[in-house]
Amino acid sequence: MNHRTDTSVTVIGLGLMGRALAGAFLKAGHPTTVWNRTPAKADRLVAEGARQAPTAGDALRASPLTIICLTDYQAVHELLGASEAALDGTTLVNLTSGTSAQARETARWAGKRGARYLDGAIMAVPPAIGTDEAVILHSGPQADFEAHRPTLGALGTVTHLGADHGLASLYDTAGLAMMWSVLNAWLQGTALLRTAGVDAATYAPFAQQIATGVAGWLPGYAEQIDSGSFPAEVSALETDARAMAHLIEESEAAGVNAELPRLIKAMADRSIAAGHGAEQYPVLIEEFGRPRGD
Amino acid sequence: MNHRTDTSVTVIGLGLMGRALAGAFLKAGHPTTVWNRTPAKADRLVAEGARQAPTAGDALRASPLTIICLTDYQAVHELLGASEAALDGTTLVNLTSGTSAQARETARWAGKRGARYLDGAIMAVPPAIGTDEAVILHSGPQADFEAHRPTLGALGTVTHLGADHGLASLYDTAGLAMMWSVLNAWLQGTALLRTAGVDAATYAPFAQQIATGVAGWLPGYAEQIDSGSFPAEVSALETDARAMAHLIEESEAAGVNAELPRLIKAMADRSIAAGHGAEQYPVLIEEFGRPRGD
Ligand SMILES: NC(=O)c1ccc[n+]([C@@H]2O[C@H](COP(=O)([O-])OP(=O)(O)OC[C@H]3O[C@@H](n4cnc5c(N)ncnc54)[C@H](OP(=O)(O)O)[C@@H]3O)[C@@H](O)[C@H]2O)c1
Ligand SMILES: NC(=O)c1ccc[n+]([C@@H]2O[C@H](COP(=O)([O-])OP(=O)(O)OC[C@H]3O[C@@H](n4cnc5c(N)ncnc54)[C@H](OP(=O)(O)O)[C@@H]3O)[C@@H](O)[C@H]2O)c1
Repeated sequence: MNHRTDTSVTVIGLGLMGRALAGAFLKAGHPTTVWNRTPAKADRLVAEGARQAPTAGDALRASPLTIICLTDYQAVHELLGASEAALDGTTLVNLTSGTSAQARETARWAGKRGARYLDGAIMAVPPAIGTDEAVILHSGPQADFEAHRPTLGALGTVTHLGADHGLASLYDTAGLAMMWSVLNAWLQGTALLRTAGVDAATYAPFAQQIATGVAGWLPGYAEQIDSGSFPAEVSALETDARAMAHLIEESEAAGVNAELPRLIKAMADRSIAAGHGAEQYPVLIEEFGRPRGD
Repeated sequence: MNHRTDTSVTVIGLGLMGRALAGAFLKAGHPTTVWNRTPAKADRLVAEGARQAPTAGDALRASPLTIICLTDYQAVHELLGASEAALDGTTLVNLTSGTSAQARETARWAGKRGARYLDGAIMAVPPAIGTDEAVILHSGPQADFEAHRPTLGALGTVTHLGADHGLASLYDTAGLAMMWSVLNAWLQGTALLRTAGVDAATYAPFAQQIATGVAGWLPGYAEQIDSGSFPAEVSALETDARAMAHLIEESEAAGVNAELPRLIKAMADRSIAAGHGAEQYPVLIEEFGRPRGD
């Protein structure tokens, strides 16, 4: 990665993730100020060259850019509420996990106190921070992102999603839904195949191949959604529903969990009942886009 | 694809898929006999060089290898039950979609009538038949598969999964569960992001990247399942569960369907309640492997 290393940066919150973030800035040569509620967590970073600020307010004032990464947004508000004065004129990048509503609300709150604010989401584990594999999403004013992109680049592959501060949380959440869904489908298949004596290692490459293949269809399927027209180019929803019945039957016969199979079929059945049986799978966006399940 | 083209083959059932199968054999140069309940569906194949048998029994007797591909197993039993005598000594490859129980039962039934039997599943749409992209799974005695692999190879990428006749249906069903799950997770994310003004085409490449990345973890995660030990190497189930709560919150706040998010969290919560919160995601195999949802 290519970036200026002379700009100073502050990291507030030195949990597992915060320590990885501060470590990456130090490694890239940035003068780095740190602060944590439990001060001892800074010891190793100080040994590596970090400057430990006595208060969170001092930490905020030490650099034009502060990264904050705490447990949740409540902790962020508790901490920053006590150091409000120090926010004026600084740029705050909040990499704490939360919802889009929390991100938007925190942006308004910080704006009123004179701070420039970017909300971010880290799609990586701490050991990956500082490598290209660490994807870090940002949302908020593009100019604020561009001004600090060279510094933020020390953390990994950084991207800007748009001006709406809620976007980083939304993409993060949507990406996690994909992660859990791939894992759950794989677990469903693994559970089924184990009843026939097939071990997980034998089945996994097959599941990987299918997931990767289907992922490749998404950009094309997205065109159907954006155009609002769902011609059955390769198969009709009705055909899918027949095979979904086999999935439920197999799961029940094998004595494995059938909840995921039933939910898959219920979504399709509702769309068929609404008259979409001869259309293609992405027509289900109408079911997914409608409140249900609360 | 490389295969002998002098061996003759029979195709019974000339629906959308059966016609594609017979067409691929003809194109590869195999002397091909066909039969369909509604005879007119053979017209085009006959024009391309197929021989149309007057009865299903004649079709079975015309070649050492018969591929059958009808609507469902009930149709297969209705049709073959009336031509039982012609099964003796032939090899039957049944590419009709069904369950593993139906496949195993049909194998026993055919065995009693002197036929060698392979059960198969087609993971492709008709236009892909005859290309490497068409994955066709087979299960049953390996020797029977090997004997006809050169001929079957005209249909696409053919694989043999094992001697248990139920395996082709099981892999097919598990693969479809992965397909629907990737599509559903993508639809969930698309529905969420549309509420923030992000169109499907903008989100799709991100979803594709996540699905492909996570698919790459499966072989490694499979080792945890086969060893029965689930150390939290990159993250603990509890951490996932906190983010799952955000997914539900986001979905409800955005006014989109929250059923899939709720099911995702319910599975994890049960595993955490069973004491697995500090372990890694694949420990959920215990929940997936247990009957529920019927
Ligand atoms: N770890 C990961 O794999 C990962 C991946 C992606 C995103 N994230 C996100 O990154 C954030 C931090 O995660 P983590 O793994 O670093 O968690 P962690 O190890 O539990 O650290 C939590 C941090 O928050 C601080 N904190 C909590 N409440 C506070 C308060 N009221 N006032 C001041 N400081 C407070 C803690 O201070 P003390 O040290 O004084 O307790 C600590 O520095 C979370 O939102 C998490 O979802 C983590
Ligand atoms: N099409 C696909 O994309 C696809 C993909 C993978 C797997 N498959 C599987 O392939 C199989 C066939 O699908 P398809 O698309 O070819 O369906 P299709 O176009 O509806 O054809 C059904 C075939 O079954 C015959 N049939 C039904 N009941 C019969 C009976 N009692 N006696 C004799 N023949 C009978 C029909 O004969 P008539 O012409 O006389 O009605 C026709 O030849 C299904 O199991 C399907 O799940 C299809």
